[in-house]
Amino acid sequence: MTAETPSADRRTILKAAAASAALLAPGAGLAQSRRDADREAIRAAVDAGYEDSVRRLREWIALPTIAAERLNIDEGVQHMSRLATEAGFTGVRAVPTGGIPAVFGVLDAGARRTVGIYFMYDVKQYDPAEWASPPLEGRIFDHPLGRAIRGRGATNQKGPESAFLAALHAFRASGRRLPVNLVLLAEGEEEIGSPNFINTMRDPEVLAAMRRAEGVIIPSNGQAPNGSASITLGAKGIIELELVASGERWGRGPARDIHSSLKAQVDSPVWHLVEALKTLTTDHGNTPAIEGWFEHVRPLTARERALIAEAARTRSEEEVKRSLGVQRWIDDLPWRESLERLASQPTVNIEGLVAGYTGPGGKTILPARGVAKLDLRLVPNMTVADALPKLRRHLERHGFGDIEVNMSGGYDPTETAEDSNVIRAQQAVYTRGNVEFSLFPRSAGSWPGFVFTGEPLRKPAGQFGLGHGSGAHAPDEYMILESSNPRVAGFREAAMGYVDFLYEMATI
Amino acid sequence: MTAETPSADRRTILKAAAASAALLAPGAGLAQSRRDADREAIRAAVDAGYEDSVRRLREWIALPTIAAERLNIDEGVQHMSRLATEAGFTGVRAVPTGGIPAVFGVLDAGARRTVGIYFMYDVKQYDPAEWASPPLEGRIFDHPLGRAIRGRGATNQKGPESAFLAALHAFRASGRRLPVNLVLLAEGEEEIGSPNFINTMRDPEVLAAMRRAEGVIIPSNGQAPNGSASITLGAKGIIELELVASGERWGRGPARDIHSSLKAQVDSPVWHLVEALKTLTTDHGNTPAIEGWFEHVRPLTARERALIAEAARTRSEEEVKRSLGVQRWIDDLPWRESLERLASQPTVNIEGLVAGYTGPGGKTILPARGVAKLDLRLVPNMTVADALPKLRRHLERHGFGDIEVNMSGGYDPTETAEDSNVIRAQQAVYTRGNVEFSLFPRSAGSWPGFVFTGEPLRKPAGQFGLGHGSGAHAPDEYMILESSNPRVAGFREAAMGYVDFLYEMATI
Repeated sequence: MTAETPSADRRTILKAAAASAALLAPGAGLAQSRRDADREAIRAAVDAGYEDSVRRLREWIALPTIAAERLNIDEGVQHMSRLATEAGFTGVRAVPTGGIPAVFGVLDAGARRTVGIYFMYDVKQYDPAEWASPPLEGRIFDHPLGRAIRGRGATNQKGPESAFLAALHAFRASGRRLPVNLVLLAEGEEEIGSPNFINTMRDPEVLAAMRRAEGVIIPSNGQAPNGSASITLGAKGIIELELVASGERWGRGPARDIHSSLKAQVDSPVWHLVEALKTLTTDHGNTPAIEGWFEHVRPLTARERALIAEAARTRSEEEVKRSLGVQRWIDDLPWRESLERLASQPTVNIEGLVAGYTGPGGKTILPARGVAKLDLRLVPNMTVADALPKLRRHLERHGFGDIEVNMSGGYDPTETAEDSNVIRAQQAVYTRGNVEFSLFPRSAGSWPGFVFTGEPLRKPAGQFGLGHGSGAHAPDEYMILESSNPRVAGFREAAMGYVDFLYEMATI
Repeated sequence: MTAETPSADRRTILKAAAASAALLAPGAGLAQSRRDADREAIRAAVDAGYEDSVRRLREWIALPTIAAERLNIDEGVQHMSRLATEAGFTGVRAVPTGGIPAVFGVLDAGARRTVGIYFMYDVKQYDPAEWASPPLEGRIFDHPLGRAIRGRGATNQKGPESAFLAALHAFRASGRRLPVNLVLLAEGEEEIGSPNFINTMRDPEVLAAMRRAEGVIIPSNGQAPNGSASITLGAKGIIELELVASGERWGRGPARDIHSSLKAQVDSPVWHLVEALKTLTTDHGNTPAIEGWFEHVRPLTARERALIAEAARTRSEEEVKRSLGVQRWIDDLPWRESLERLASQPTVNIEGLVAGYTGPGGKTILPARGVAKLDLRLVPNMTVADALPKLRRHLERHGFGDIEVNMSGGYDPTETAEDSNVIRAQQAVYTRGNVEFSLFPRSAGSWPGFVFTGEPLRKPAGQFGLGHGSGAHAPDEYMILESSNPRVAGFREAAMGYVDFLYEMATI
């Protein structure tokens, strides 16, 4: 459910030199030289294990777990468990959630600190007809940025997760001890909005293990095609749902599809749905009009505005527009204002409409039923618990109380402080690696970080990783394996990024 | 595209006795006795040919011509041509229309008068998964009303057309001369709104032949389950079209589907479509709000209101509601007013909505495109030529000029005078056959009768036939072959109804 990383251009500020000097505290010299030696051995092991890692990724891509279709649930749990065990996790087991199970494991390195790792082992649906090669094949191909792998999950999220596992394999193969202990929690229904993932916190062993963690990351391909990275200090929440209008519930219109000529005598549940939708937004769908929707919306802070202004300076508007196929932003806003809107505004998006006859040409029916698939993004301090009843009340008050609101998934926004260890460790890795980066207040996309940043854990949590990929939720999803651009990490460099991150988390 | 025949209940007035006496003019006695003898021989031939007729119908059902999918076009033309030739038509040939060809033929009986016969050889789409038996099998099964045939086209329109052909076979087999000459014009794209059928009138031979016709019928199963029949004095016109909103045409929103998180920054063509739809109607979709839409709408005449009042008295509201699965009419109108609305109001119906992700569950995309499939029924004196530009202008004036209006088919309303030969002949057949019937001003459904009732022909034209079937455009379409209710005609009695109609047309 994570969004594409916005790309940045060459003007991105190089923060490397100044920052890395500042990070070297007194006495850090000896630790640094030992770490450098360890790092060299681990890198050699990453290289030696590369073919195995790619094979592992391709095998994983070949086994899609799709929560919406309940596809390969048991198989996905078993595969995830095997991957975790092979990478060194112990006590690996499925955790019941009430939905699709999570997978849990720990890696006790005898270290002082512990880091939490969030994985998702499910993927988004796909239509093979839209792909250049079979989406489950994991075909290796030549991309303008280098050798790449194409397949469902290549970047969202099996590719970066495989790079993380490759790092763990390399620690073991090189005989190096991990600098931190790990707790792994892998979800199987992220792509339907994590409806049950919070329930993992009811498992005493899971909760106790997660309480020991300093912070949590989800491995992610964080680099734009030009190599720049964006660190987000949180993500929007989401409610994913279907609005279903039917003659049966409404008590008007037909109980089943009837001949369209009867429209002159019989009400239409599909028109009823269109009228209901129309009340949810103003301004061509751009501003939610659900009563009380903005009650708890926290405006951007001065710091957040400054970060966005910085991002607007360093990211290429033209490149982003080209990559999205977009000519104008909402209200013809200038770039910076459009990014403020992106970071700060709740949305009511129509993912899909399905009613009546959907095949080629027409069919003269008056449909008994219509469905609108919506996703509503929430910003701080909105919550699902507050927003969903507001939507229902709004529909009731406007005469649409009969329309079913079927929430399939969703969760609250997540925020992590700029000065938290997870964010500082990310900056340190990018700085040491000479990776241009910028901070952004909030991803407009969503991931279930609230499970870690909210009650009961209240830990810092974020997306992190070197590497580049694209096509999440879209055809021809890919990840760069062997980069032809020295500024963009390939698979092996991405694995080393996780190695470096774990070292940073041990000391920061 | 014809609608289900509204059912009638037992209170339908028996007009038989009085009317049949009035129809017998002086000197009609001798002709009548000769006709009775002929009729007996023809009936014997219909009975003898029954198995062949059913086989012929099943073979036809097995070959679906579907214009929307361009399925079996050549095959359909050839099959229709063979059916016509075998039934006695000569000079049978395909007539180019610019779309799917029509089939034309004449049957010169050396008679004084000529009758035009309209066939459609195409059928509506179907989804085999929704059917109790394969829709192309033509399975014979036990229906509460008797032995029946189930298959696509069973009642719309291959079943009644086969009964008409059975009548012609029986004339020949019994050595009886047809009382009228026939001109056959069979269409192959009725189910997509007859976009090219009017072009058959550009063919000089077709036009000359049709000019000789006294009137035109389309064979139809005109009886409700209780045996009563409704004679309609016309039918609404129709415009079938797709409204297509896209980022590409709009210049706003994405050119292809993008991640839904970007809704905060990027416009949505699907919301644009919803807003456009909302402007087309008021009152929950029940009243067209397209500017100027009612300009040429002719209110019901006093005679039309009287006919509707009569229909309201004789048809069972409860039975119709039950058969449609409807609890309330629009605006909670009483039965008579709802029938007035049915006969007199133009409609804007949504046949289907298709946008973005339409599969199970959700998919977090911001779709680049949305499609609404509409059918707009036209009443006298609206015309397609006047209405379609009004729709386009309306969209432009409301800021939706970018939305494509793709008309796929349609035609003007059709009207035939109550005192025309075609209507009087129908009444005479029903009266002689003791069939309860009522007159109704207009079918709310549509058929391309305007080709015959409009310029250049200006002939009376209508739907006619004994027999019962249901499920047009729906699963499990059927026609009763051997009726267990003496008030409902089976296939053989339907064939005899056409025999009687041709005799009436010869003298009326």
